This record gives sequence, C-alpha cells and structure tokens, in this order.
Amino acid sequence: METLQSLAARLRSGKVSSAELVERALERATDPAGEGSRVFTRLLADQARAAAQAMDRLRAAGAAPSPYAGIPITVKDLFDVAGQVTTAGSRVLQDNPAAERDAVAVARLRAAGFVIIGRTNMTEFAYSGLGMNAHYGTPRNPYDRATGRIPGGSSSGAAVAVTDRMSAAGLGTDTGGSCRIPAALCGIVGFKPTAHRVSKEGVIPLSTTLDSVGPLARSVDCCALLDAVLTNGPLQAEDPLPLDGLRLGVPDCYVTEGMDNVVAAAWERALSHLSAAGARLVSLPLAMLKEIPQINAKGGLVGAEAYAWHRPYLERSAHLYDPWVLQRFEAGKSQSAADYIATRTARAQLIERVGRVTARADALLMPTVPIVAPTLAELAETEVANRTNLFLLRNPSLANFLDRCALSVPCHRPGEAPVGLMLVGEHGDDRRLLAIGRAVETVVAPEN
Amino acid sequence: METLQSLAARLRSGKVSSAELVERALERATDPAGEGSRVFTRLLADQARAAAQAMDRLRAAGAAPSPYAGIPITVKDLFDVAGQVTTAGSRVLQDNPAAERDAVAVARLRAAGFVIIGRTNMTEFAYSGLGMNAHYGTPRNPYDRATGRIPGGSSSGAAVAVTDRMSAAGLGTDTGGSCRIPAALCGIVGFKPTAHRVSKEGVIPLSTTLDSVGPLARSVDCCALLDAVLTNGPLQAEDPLPLDGLRLGVPDCYVTEGMDNVVAAAWERALSHLSAAGARLVSLPLAMLKEIPQINAKGGLVGAEAYAWHRPYLERSAHLYDPWVLQRFEAGKSQSAADYIATRTARAQLIERVGRVTARADALLMPTVPIVAPTLAELAETEVANRTNLFLLRNPSLANFLDRCALSVPCHRPGEAPVGLMLVGEHGDDRRLLAIGRAVETVVAPEN
Repeated sequence: METLQSLAARLRSGKVSSAELVERALERATDPAGEGSRVFTRLLADQARAAAQAMDRLRAAGAAPSPYAGIPITVKDLFDVAGQVTTAGSRVLQDNPAAERDAVAVARLRAAGFVIIGRTNMTEFAYSGLGMNAHYGTPRNPYDRATGRIPGGSSSGAAVAVTDRMSAAGLGTDTGGSCRIPAALCGIVGFKPTAHRVSKEGVIPLSTTLDSVGPLARSVDCCALLDAVLTNGPLQAEDPLPLDGLRLGVPDCYVTEGMDNVVAAAWERALSHLSAAGARLVSLPLAMLKEIPQINAKGGLVGAEAYAWHRPYLERSAHLYDPWVLQRFEAGKSQSAADYIATRTARAQLIERVGRVTARADALLMPTVPIVAPTLAELAETEVANRTNLFLLRNPSLANFLDRCALSVPCHRPGEAPVGLMLVGEHGDDRRLLAIGRAVETVVAPEN
Repeated sequence: METLQSLAARLRSGKVSSAELVERALERATDPAGEGSRVFTRLLADQARAAAQAMDRLRAAGAAPSPYAGIPITVKDLFDVAGQVTTAGSRVLQDNPAAERDAVAVARLRAAGFVIIGRTNMTEFAYSGLGMNAHYGTPRNPYDRATGRIPGGSSSGAAVAVTDRMSAAGLGTDTGGSCRIPAALCGIVGFKPTAHRVSKEGVIPLSTTLDSVGPLARSVDCCALLDAVLTNGPLQAEDPLPLDGLRLGVPDCYVTEGMDNVVAAAWERALSHLSAAGARLVSLPLAMLKEIPQINAKGGLVGAEAYAWHRPYLERSAHLYDPWVLQRFEAGKSQSAADYIATRTARAQLIERVGRVTARADALLMPTVPIVAPTLAELAETEVANRTNLFLLRNPSLANFLDRCALSVPCHRPGEAPVGLMLVGEHGDDRRLLAIGRAVETVVAPEN
C-alpha cells in the first residue's frame, strides 16, 4: 500500500516518474478484467499523461509545485472540471453546458501538482450510502469480489480506485457518510471535515447545509495532507497525539445497535487495543442521539434541500432519474417550510446538548457502519435497499447532523471483510481529530 | 429636543439628577391626557425610581458606569426583562413563565446605567409596519393628534415615548422596517443595524433571519451611541463624514414610486440640500429591486419563520390573536420547504447582484416610506390596512432583505407632517453609515 508520503519520496529520489505512476494507474483503470469501467464516469487519460509529463519536467527543473506533484488522484463526478459537463453520476445533467472553471477543491489539488486521472462514479446525485449506480454500473467492493458486494457510497468509485490502485487518493463529498461509508466497507481511510472547512464552490449540492468536501485515501496521514491542500494550510501533518491518557468517548447506545458478528468482533478488538495502548474509554450517556431520526422524520435537511435543488430537473426530466433515487425526493417534496425551520432549530438545540456531554472526551468512537458490505444481490429489492441505506447512514450522518468532523479508519483483520472505526471530533477541530486519528490508526490498523 | 449627549452633560454638571429625569418621564407617561396608557404595555415606575436613585448615588461617588447612567429609556415589549413575562404586545403569551434573565441587549443598556422606565407597545408580535394594536390600543402619532394618525410600527410605543418625552430613546427591533417606519412617521431617528450585529438572545423572534435589534432616538448621534452600547463598542461617535464628494446612490426606480406630495417635496428638498452641500448624487440602475416582491410571493422568509415559531401557539390559542394579525400567518403556513430554500437562494443571488451596482456609492438614499402617516380611520378596513402595510414596508424591508444596515433621519419642515429620509449602508459597515448619517442629518433636519 503506497501512501502519498511514500510516493512523494520515490518521486523525489527519482525511483519513479509521474509518467510511470500515471501510466500504471491508467493500465489498471482500463484493464477489461478490472473495475475501471464502473469506477470512472470519465477517464481523463490524455490530460493526465500531459500533466504527468509536465510535473516530471517541473521536478527535474527543481520547480515542482509541491512534494506531491505528479501523484495520480481522482475526483468525484460532482466536482466541476473546467471544460467538461458535470454529470453527478446521472443522465439528467448531460445536456448542461461544460463547466467554465474547476471547482475550488479541484483547483487546489491541481495547484499542488496532483494529476487528475478521472472522474469517479458515485450514487446518482450522491443520494444514498450504498454506492449503487443504475447508469454507470456499480464498482464492486474489493472484498469478496467474486460474489459482488457494494462498495458503499456515495463516493463509490473514489474508494475502489484507491483499493484497486488506479489512484493514490480520491476527492469525495460527504453529506451523511459518503466519504466514510465506502472507506469503511472497502478498507481505506475516509475523512469528513467540518462542513464549512472546504469550499463547495463548483460542487453540485445534495444538502447545502450538510455537504462536506473530503478525501478518501490509504492512511490518516494521506487524508491530513489532502485536507491541508484543500484548505490551503501548511503541507505537513501534525504529530500523532499520544494515546496514553487520551479520553475516547463511547456513546452508551444507538451507535452500537445491530452490529453483525464481524463488526462487533472488530469493534471489541479495537477498543481493547486502544485501552491497552493507554487510551481511557469513557462511556457517554448519549440516548439523545436517538432523537435524530425523529427530527428527520419529515425528510430532514437533506430531503428539503435536495428537493429544492432538483425541483426544476424533476419537473422536466424525472424519467431520466434512476427510479430508486427518484423516490427519495418524495419526502422533501411534501415538507413544509415550518417543518424545515423546526428541523434547523431542533438541530441547533441537539448540537448544544450533545456538546455538553461530549466535552468530557477528546473524540467520540463508534463503528463507522454496523455491518460489513452487503452483496449486490440482496439489495435488489427496493425495500431492503432503503432499509440498508438508512442503517449504513445512521452513524456517519450523526457527524453531519452535529456539524462536526469525522474520520473512518480500517480496524479489521487482514483478509477479513473490511470494517471501519469512526472517530468524531469537535466542530472545527479537524486538525486535532486527524492527529488523534494517526495515533488510533497505528493501534487498530489491519496490519496489527 | 434633548439628545443623550445633552442629557449626559446636564447630569455630569449636576443641573439635573436621574431621579428628576425619571420622575418627569413617569409624569408624562401617566398623564391621563397623554398617550402613556397606549405607549406602554407595562410601566416600570418603582424599578425605574430605584435605579435612578442608585445611578445618582453612583455618579455622586464618581462611580457611574457610563456618562449616560441615569438616562430614562424604554424597551419594546418583545425583549426579555428578568422577572417579567414577555408578552410581545399580545395576549397569547400572558401565561408563559417570567423571563429568568434580561435579554442581552437589555442587559447591556442596564450595564451602561440606562434606566428602563417601561416596556413599549408594539404591533402584536411585531407582525406589521402600521403600529396598530387591538389589545393595548394604538399610540397616536404626535403629528395631527386630534385627527388620530398611526405611529407606524412595529416599534410604535418606542417612537411615541420619545416624541412625547417619556424617554430619551427606545430599544426596538426591525425585521422589515419596525425601527425606521415609526421613526419616519413620528419625526425621529431610527437605526436598523446589520442583522447579526446585535445579539437577539432573549428576544421573541418574528423572522430569525431578518430580525435586527436597533434604537429609536432623537438624533443619529444618539443612535450611534446606543449602537456602541448594544455591541459593547467604544462609547464615542465617529466624526461625521464630510459630505463634500460623498457619493450617495439613488435607485432609479421602485423606491420613489407612489410618493405623496408631502414626501415628494421633502425628498426633492433633501436631495437638493445634499447636492448643495457637495454630495454627489448618483443614479443607480436598480430595477432588480422589483424582484423582491416576486421572490417573497409565497410569504417570504418572514412568513415561513414567523409561522414556524407561532405554530404551537396557533394550534392552541388562535382565538387570542388579533384576527388581522392572525390572517398574516396564512402564507407561511402553506409555504413548502423548497419554496423557503428557493427564497434563500434567490436572496443570496440578489444580494450579490445589487452589491455590484451599489459598490459605486457610499450609501443609498431613498424616502423611508412614500407617504405621511395615514389616519387610524382610513385603516379600519382590512383591505386598506393590508395594502398600506405592504406599501410602508416596501422600502425599509429591502435593507433587511439585502442584509444591510439602514438609518431613517427626519427631513420634513418644522410643523409639517414628519417625513423620513433613509440611508442604506453596506452589510456590516454600520459605523460608517452612522458617520454618514450624522453629516446628512445636519443638512436635511427639520431645523434647517
């Protein structure tokens, strides 16, 4: 597994060129036996090759824009890329004009010299956590590929591009878990920053309130680096926070309900490893988290905001939507302004109440999702897909609802189905959460 | 006409005591021939007398909390005052528990030593610009009192308390003109700060987005001082900005439509006085302002947010509302979440478009309202009241919709019906607008 730091070291030493990295990534992406055709909605082979050559020249001249210049990366299909139509994994927008400029997040990756090798597939309009796509196909989870399991979503292609070494990292978005669910189900790291942290300019919204722009990558360090790039921060990771004495808060209910055996075992193992490493596990009375589904009963902020954005498209192009995605707009359609405002008010109150409890801990700890990746076959039924989707979103979406940052790190055993351990930090304390994540990762990672 | 500055000078020199000021204010407030019974929902005579004595003692000991300690002031009936039920000019809330603490704005006035002599009457729940109140009576405009004209609202009592010398200034709120309309119709100064500028904690909301907390007083200087108190800023006014070369933008339509003869004459006179004083009057192409009523066609932010707050009360106590106020909640009730979100989006876009045009001017200039105060008799008909209300709100509410600060200064001739001239500043540039207002006031004030 190559991290951004190891790739940067190899590029710096001349052991590999960007052209070689990009060529190998493209080979895998175009391998007919691989997932490439379902991972990408559009491969940018020519542009990537040109960019790689340019980065190699710049590095040779001592003028590389960053130590990471030339590393292949992907961007989710809902970020604007100059000169191309942004389709968001859908057919609805295909006749839209091409974007005039890159989304701010894309521009920042380019400015640091990252080479964008393609636009990754996703749940249509990012509107589910399963990662299935009726138009572009569903990239299969790297685990148990023969059976065919969902990758998780909505940033499905971003995750599988990393696991299948078509890219070193992916730029994703996360409204209720869309970076962290595929990271957990595919065995990589996914980071959801505090929503306001990374510019959403040039990104097709799902929920203007809850959307966050974040990376999927091989390590917490990779995510910390990309977070620095995306926020124009200094390009260096904080040291890991020492685990000894760190207070990790474990909600006393809700987030551990319904775990399957694999997740339950990985979760218990992670807790005991963290405890053995000196972390203090603090049980937190957080029954109030159960109020979130009630608060969102009328469709929540996502329902209302997604419907508001899609209304003109739904009125003229409803037939172009995947029917399963289409039905998800119903709750938002019937929601009243007063319900929407009441949801915002209830959210603000819950944020305050939860904050008073979680102030006792340095971060919250929970399984990212309570089950391992379901098979594609079992999700064929609409009812099962709906239920599974809500179940996968339950834990990750609480971080969006509470306006916080969160990180999913792998905690399964090598060879077993991937399981994610989620850390949730305070609003705006993103760098601290990443520093905690670096320490936690070393203790719970599959290599241990 | 006594300003806060002149009162402070008299208190400092010992020519008057706070006890005397408060006693005189209370005499006027309780004069059976006066408006006091309609100006106040509750007079705080005992508390005011005690506070006045305390301030006199503090001043004598050289320990007055500010130069303005001991000056009588009023607060609108929707601010929490510790130990009292906040009724918002309504009967709906009368069984609510008493407030545990003062609203932040009230606490800041008290901290500076202002003496609160009463809670002022208002449109029920601040939901109109006329200033009529079916429960507590309508304080009559100081102009043409024999006929009986509306004071304007919703901060009706706050304005008449100042004109009738029951207080030196009033604390009001402004969601679509509620400080500026009564100021304009009664011939005093009203200031609406940028909405985020003054804390709304402890204030019953009308529109959580558009509500602003601001003063009504005798001069721009008074308002600037109170703004400093309310924002914990330094207690000194900026010098007036020189009018010579100042660019005052006049929208080329919309805001001057429908002026009556008195307002039109005062408006033309004000423009020529300002021009003669060296200000450059710049006509600005702002036909886009006409989009505001269309954007708000489904009830706007006020409709949705007012209904959301009132929903529980409407469900159990609809019969306690004035029927005329009650009917105003209908539009908000039927508004969908998508409509509400679309309004927010359209607002953000209009703010940006208008901002590009108004960047050419130091402030915008318009009549605060296009007509002088109507008589109470002509507003007895619901249809006329509704139409007149929207007409009065038209210009003031654009400052709330555009998220800016605005100031109404008197510009009529002595003895004539009061007319207000409105200045609209940039978002957050409140102190600069007040400095411009000081210069404009000297040129257009009734004394000239």
